Amino acid sequence: MLDPVSKLYWEDFVPGAVTAYGPRLVTRAEIVAFATEFDPQPFHLDEEAGRASMFGGLCASGWHSCCLLMRMAADGILLNSSSMGAPGVDEVRWQAPVRPGDALTMRATVLETRPSNTRPELGFVTFKFELYNAAGACAMTLTAPLMFGRRTPGGTAT
Amino acid sequence: MLDPVSKLYWEDFVPGAVTAYGPRLVTRAEIVAFATEFDPQPFHLDEEAGRASMFGGLCASGWHSCCLLMRMAADGILLNSSSMGAPGVDEVRWQAPVRPGDALTMRATVLETRPSNTRPELGFVTFKFELYNAAGACAMTLTAPLMFGRRTPGGTAT
Repeated sequence: MLDPVSKLYWEDFVPGAVTAYGPRLVTRAEIVAFATEFDPQPFHLDEEAGRASMFGGLCASGWHSCCLLMRMAADGILLNSSSMGAPGVDEVRWQAPVRPGDALTMRATVLETRPSNTRPELGFVTFKFELYNAAGACAMTLTAPLMFGRRTPGGTAT
Repeated sequence: MLDPVSKLYWEDFVPGAVTAYGPRLVTRAEIVAFATEFDPQPFHLDEEAGRASMFGGLCASGWHSCCLLMRMAADGILLNSSSMGAPGVDEVRWQAPVRPGDALTMRATVLETRPSNTRPELGFVTFKFELYNAAGACAMTLTAPLMFGRRTPGGTAT
């Protein structure tokens, strides 16, 4: 999962950089188990109810897509970094349903980096994440500022 | 969980209306199980790592907070409504850690309602959700437009 590369610090993220991750297969059992626990709306639990909905079939909760993307970001980026969490999420757009059997891939683009004004030991990296299904359709976009420790606290970006 | 009231349609949501839900106890086992599956960063898995982080102790993944809020919204509002899902989330802010043993309560405020321009059978209701811990601190705010079926498709709001 993790590449055997050096640990990533805030200075290592460069605006415009794009990286790709996956595929991650999503099963019907996972979709139903997640929805049963966190989002038990009928179109996330039952094929018949999904067909009767605007989704045209059983589909994963949008929150499940967020959580799958989070895990791909953790495995691909954060667990090999000085990640310090995130203050929140700027925007999520669910653009196409995630279905049982979908093999999801993720694209991560660095939109912007900036040092913290108040904490010299960290900086922010704003990512745009895109989640694609096997057919190449974008199922979700998610933009969020993540916090990373700086290799050189209080120094200037390199 | 569901009040024995009439099913809620788009027309029933009025800007400014505030409703409250919970409490929902969060256990250490749930926090660790969620993080193990979706967000295995050390400060979500281990007390020692949590203490060494800026969170000052083990805390739930922010995505776990989103999912717990989703379930409270489902039980309190959506499962007794004409909910048709959501196009996304406008903003999430994680303001304070969610800890093992926290009893979470939720406040839902209707910010705005508008009919769909393209689908006469549905309308949008933008909610601001706030999640509070037992000490009364706001742990998270989340703003999202939700879609609901209209009682009178294509009619004017009442």
